[in-house]
Amino acid sequence: SDSYSLLILPGDGIGPEVMAEVVKVIDWFGANRGMSFDIQHGLVGGSSYDAHGTPLTDETMAKAQSVDAVLLGAVGGTQYDSLDFSVKPERGLLRLRKEMDLYANLRPAQCFDALADFSSLKREVVAGLDILIVRELTSGVYFGEPRGIHSDDNNPDNEGGRVGINTQRYTSGEIRRVARSAFELARRRSNRVCSMEKANVMESGILWREEVQWVHDNEYPDVELSHMYADNGAMQLVRKPRQFDVIVTDNLFGDLLSDAAAMLTGSLGMLPSASLGAPMANGRPKALYEPVHGSAPDIAGQGKANPIACILSFAMALRYSFDQGDAAAELERAVERVLADGARTADLMGPEGGTPLSTSEMGDRIVAAL
Amino acid sequence: SDSYSLLILPGDGIGPEVMAEVVKVIDWFGANRGMSFDIQHGLVGGSSYDAHGTPLTDETMAKAQSVDAVLLGAVGGTQYDSLDFSVKPERGLLRLRKEMDLYANLRPAQCFDALADFSSLKREVVAGLDILIVRELTSGVYFGEPRGIHSDDNNPDNEGGRVGINTQRYTSGEIRRVARSAFELARRRSNRVCSMEKANVMESGILWREEVQWVHDNEYPDVELSHMYADNGAMQLVRKPRQFDVIVTDNLFGDLLSDAAAMLTGSLGMLPSASLGAPMANGRPKALYEPVHGSAPDIAGQGKANPIACILSFAMALRYSFDQGDAAAELERAVERVLADGARTADLMGPEGGTPLSTSEMGDRIVAAL
Ligand SMILES: CC(C)[C@H](C(=O)O)[C@@H](O)C(=O)O
Ligand SMILES: CC(C)[C@H](C(=O)O)[C@@H](O)C(=O)O
Repeated sequence: SDSYSLLILPGDGIGPEVMAEVVKVIDWFGANRGMSFDIQHGLVGGSSYDAHGTPLTDETMAKAQSVDAVLLGAVGGTQYDSLDFSVKPERGLLRLRKEMDLYANLRPAQCFDALADFSSLKREVVAGLDILIVRELTSGVYFGEPRGIHSDDNNPDNEGGRVGINTQRYTSGEIRRVARSAFELARRRSNRVCSMEKANVMESGILWREEVQWVHDNEYPDVELSHMYADNGAMQLVRKPRQFDVIVTDNLFGDLLSDAAAMLTGSLGMLPSASLGAPMANGRPKALYEPVHGSAPDIAGQGKANPIACILSFAMALRYSFDQGDAAAELERAVERVLADGARTADLMGPEGGTPLSTSEMGDRIVAAL
Repeated sequence: SDSYSLLILPGDGIGPEVMAEVVKVIDWFGANRGMSFDIQHGLVGGSSYDAHGTPLTDETMAKAQSVDAVLLGAVGGTQYDSLDFSVKPERGLLRLRKEMDLYANLRPAQCFDALADFSSLKREVVAGLDILIVRELTSGVYFGEPRGIHSDDNNPDNEGGRVGINTQRYTSGEIRRVARSAFELARRRSNRVCSMEKANVMESGILWREEVQWVHDNEYPDVELSHMYADNGAMQLVRKPRQFDVIVTDNLFGDLLSDAAAMLTGSLGMLPSASLGAPMANGRPKALYEPVHGSAPDIAGQGKANPIACILSFAMALRYSFDQGDAAAELERAVERVLADGARTADLMGPEGGTPLSTSEMGDRIVAAL
């Protein structure tokens, strides 16, 4: 039972480079911590489109459904900008999320002490920051029907003659299950959840607020729950981010708010994420792990990328998929130690300069620190 | 023709207090700059609900349609939280926006030099910040149909048995007209527009991007146009806000992004906004001016509120409704001078302490500086 199956999808841009370092880390845990990994590889995003004409093949989708955890690098690239919506790199990622039903996206925004000065925010505002955004990932305006661009030619008031439609749609059940994830996680942290929506403007926001409150009152009355309008949430994240512990919000608000929160820390290259679904037959949740950063086409293939976000995503896999909390902490400590020793990739270089480590040098340092 | 009709809607919370200071300023311009103002007063939001059972009466709506400019304080308060959605204070404001067809919401985020240290961001990141967010204000998910909360009892998978729906709907014409506003404004500034959407996920975002590009290519090829995904936009606003000049975005993204941008400046109590529609018979645009801050029920009635955002909203009225750019600049300079002299309301007090000015003392200082 210390044997785990993994599907590695390096994706596009810097994805393959950073994933190569994760493999070194996986090998170390295999060799030194009595775990055994059964690893498969596959394509997703633009690299899959280039090879197969689709950003995700049915074969890869089936593999993703069958493994204990999927590790993903990043998708996207400017060369795919003109592709049709239905085959854009992002569709591969969205298909994985939807068909694996990964409804809870965990995005920690943590400020590493050694890196606090990289934040555009004042040190005293972000030092020690440790918040967890739980974003609903399989519903809302990302997936709601009807959607599309239609002709509106019969409307003389509509210069241009087209109309674009998307639908924000949430069921109470979809809201309740992600709320439960947030409350569970809060219990293992500071026991506080702040739920964000626009209930003053959107009925789907009213339903969101009511259902989160219902789950709280009926199942988690011990957790402190507050509600905030999402625009105020965006403000408060900038003003005083440490007021938050766990934030739970919908797919679209979560997209913006988690990116803003990530940027507060000043070190996007450091931030992992986990996307979790329902338990499988073996008790492990359906799961996909990926760094918060994107594919960074501008630096791809140059050995400049920071592999830490992707490595820390594997630490989340150890914790949430394999119940190996000690091993996860061991890996996280190794990363902290390496940073405290001054190891820096190009994105972490201060104005004082110096020679940055390459992607693979950083990976080697972390393995050495383990 | 230097005669202007105004409808003043103080609204709720601190609205009446700050609006009282605006009236002093209006009186000064009437007495000293050869303008004459025909002022009517009305209720909106909770105060209208309390008096009439609706957050905006038809009479007040009709007045708003007939004047040169509406000045609004703020709406909302915790005592109205349990009201039905249809009569919440916000509905009064949303009705004004929709029926006056105020499609272009101008939200400057400007960092005042004397106040740069109030920002949670580093001084070097925000000093001199001067961006203008142009938010579409009459369409999108705020107003799209179908909307509402429905029963979903026949769906056994839906624990809770309800579904909440909102519709994001944009016509090409709605996008083009707000894009034109943004390009026009950019020409009077640094000539750069960044348009934000989620075209990688939403078809309405694809339409947004295409129509903004169309207006650019056909009518404003001289303005520099870029496109950015809204999540990246939220990041970039935190990371390096001065990279932007004019940002144009939809109603919902604009709500979050403009609040985040406002908070970057560190002085929410300073930020005005203008909401503009099509020209009326007299050539002036339909217009409503209001501070970006809310009704702040926690400090209402205590004389602690900062009236500057509301006063600067009147400066925007001078500029955009009355074509009195010189008078607007005169008022803005008076505010800057008063701040440079150290005048501070409670929200602007630093850790060094001191005695803050009251709302009306600040208003008096500004009138004295004029
Ligand atoms: C790549 C894109 C489809 C995706 C999203 O919008 O969810 C990304 O921004 C994210 O946050 O993971
Ligand atoms: C009060 C509320 C309806 C409003 C909005 O969501 O537009 C406010 O947040 C704003 O930005 O003006």
